[in-house]
Amino acid sequence: MAASVQPVVTAVIMAGGRGERFWPRSRNHLPKQFLSLTDDGETMIRKTADRLEGLVPHENIYVVTAEEHIPLAREQLPFVPAANLLAEPAPRNTAPCIALAAAVIRKRHGDAVMLILPADHMIRHRSLCTDILRRAVAAAAEDDRPVTIGITPTYPETGYGYIEFSPEDTAGQGIYRVTSFREKPDGETAKAYVQSGRYLWNSGMFAWRTSVYCNALREHLPVLADFADTITQVCDTPRFASVLREEFPRLPAVSVDYGVLEHWRQLYTIPAGFGWDDVGSWPALGRVAKTDTNGNYRSGDILTVGTRDCVFYGGKRLIAAVGLENIILVDTEDALLACSADAAQNVRKITEMLREQGRGELL
Amino acid sequence: MAASVQPVVTAVIMAGGRGERFWPRSRNHLPKQFLSLTDDGETMIRKTADRLEGLVPHENIYVVTAEEHIPLAREQLPFVPAANLLAEPAPRNTAPCIALAAAVIRKRHGDAVMLILPADHMIRHRSLCTDILRRAVAAAAEDDRPVTIGITPTYPETGYGYIEFSPEDTAGQGIYRVTSFREKPDGETAKAYVQSGRYLWNSGMFAWRTSVYCNALREHLPVLADFADTITQVCDTPRFASVLREEFPRLPAVSVDYGVLEHWRQLYTIPAGFGWDDVGSWPALGRVAKTDTNGNYRSGDILTVGTRDCVFYGGKRLIAAVGLENIILVDTEDALLACSADAAQNVRKITEMLREQGRGELL
Repeated sequence: MAASVQPVVTAVIMAGGRGERFWPRSRNHLPKQFLSLTDDGETMIRKTADRLEGLVPHENIYVVTAEEHIPLAREQLPFVPAANLLAEPAPRNTAPCIALAAAVIRKRHGDAVMLILPADHMIRHRSLCTDILRRAVAAAAEDDRPVTIGITPTYPETGYGYIEFSPEDTAGQGIYRVTSFREKPDGETAKAYVQSGRYLWNSGMFAWRTSVYCNALREHLPVLADFADTITQVCDTPRFASVLREEFPRLPAVSVDYGVLEHWRQLYTIPAGFGWDDVGSWPALGRVAKTDTNGNYRSGDILTVGTRDCVFYGGKRLIAAVGLENIILVDTEDALLACSADAAQNVRKITEMLREQGRGELL
Repeated sequence: MAASVQPVVTAVIMAGGRGERFWPRSRNHLPKQFLSLTDDGETMIRKTADRLEGLVPHENIYVVTAEEHIPLAREQLPFVPAANLLAEPAPRNTAPCIALAAAVIRKRHGDAVMLILPADHMIRHRSLCTDILRRAVAAAAEDDRPVTIGITPTYPETGYGYIEFSPEDTAGQGIYRVTSFREKPDGETAKAYVQSGRYLWNSGMFAWRTSVYCNALREHLPVLADFADTITQVCDTPRFASVLREEFPRLPAVSVDYGVLEHWRQLYTIPAGFGWDDVGSWPALGRVAKTDTNGNYRSGDILTVGTRDCVFYGGKRLIAAVGLENIILVDTEDALLACSADAAQNVRKITEMLREQGRGELL
């Protein structure tokens, strides 16, 4: 742990999501991460970048997103250099996304620390989050450890993956060994997880050196390691864009959790609590945003009578709600969603139907 | 019962309703009776008039409605003479409305039979209805009886008033004596009413001679009898409109049921079943109109997933419903209503709030 080996610190904002669970407010041309779902003026990706203040210089922030969304990223993050906006030619999940970023960062910054952040999560306590990210960076830098941020669960959520950690097996500084990954649990299991004190929510935020990730790819996903090598070669040459367009769509779509993290024998976690929520679907707004005394989230011109625990996301039109409970209502110019909060995951069935019916203008 | 005493038969279509329970589809400038709620191309008032075919000649059809709605009535009932469209200067419930019509009809047609029909009820079996109306007219004409059409209840509705009748005490031709009126009952009472076979729904359709009604007014509501005398005097003179505007707003607002029918010692009813519904609020559409296999009424561009027993009344915009049950959704250009079917009577609280907030453009 010599002060002299401080590596460069970079951040990778993963912004490839299509946000279909937030239809009809999010659309293919404007997914969730480029919206301010809670109407507080800042988009989710902008808030993600702002949390890096004092930790990662602007010129070291990278964004990976769909080609069509590069202009949105440029507009919303004007301080990020254009060369740091990396366009995915096709969606291939998180492992290839991080491989692309690692390949570019390795070329430009050497064996830098990569702080990897989803662009579309909500965090209530910004400075607490920045502090935790700082500790994750330090651990990744000083001890070459791969680190995942684990969120201390505040209730038995069944929609998240969980990380089991070993509270005794401390690596110092509040950093612990991960012992297993658990898929989304049922209600009973989730309750047991929360009560045990040995499980954390898998936040999807990571920190590691480029070498640590690339070595893991070589071992567990060699096709991605080869891809990263190719990209590092062509990075900042005229061939970069065409090689990327050629190679990327051929990669397997695999998540970094499934493809890399679960194989890591030495993975560490920092348990943290900073008001995190992945805001995975409309009902989450009732958890993370300000509600009225009846638990209703209200955005727009809303009148309610005998209505509780609803989410109203209006436009210009008046929304009048009478006797509703646990209902999501999202109004846009050309489409209106009315959904039971318990069935929010089925909003995808609507977008599937629209796709099948060739009604792409509504997607 | 001599064939020679056949009086003139007239009809009075009561179209004064403001239809606020169908907000936001019905508005002050376009209430329910001037809409086709079931999207079958004919407005409710037009269908009411059409049921009189072969029974009441066009020139004997009268319409009583708000001043501002006279142009709508003229447009939708072009075959009704303009002089038969009677404008209420203010809403004063049904007893004054019928007094106004009786006063005019008495002047023009003498002691004619008045067939009195609400403009905004739904009737599934048109010819059965016309047959019943014919029998009511005959009873009112031949025996000077006041007659009310009673609907054989098909389920224990708690939203209707009931008429108790005496099944033994027949006056011949399937016409029975009314023994009492009952207010909207609770669920248990409604069940007992239906099971007893002695109760009918109060349909608000009546037949009587002008003299029978005016005599009843003289006895029970003399201020209305005086009003009717004044109107008969000025009817078809240049003073008619100004006298009506002067006198009508001063009348007490009282229903014909409460003010007249309940006092009548000799009131008759014809029990009938012709698929009647007063369509008193949005959930009624699920009863009276065609629904899909999951019991959803669909008008507009509607996609549903796991949704049952809902009413969707859309506009141009797509409505996507996910996991809903017993919900009313009405979409218009400037306002959207989402309402639990069980709370439909509270839609009025929304229109009250809009009035209080000075947002008349939405009413």
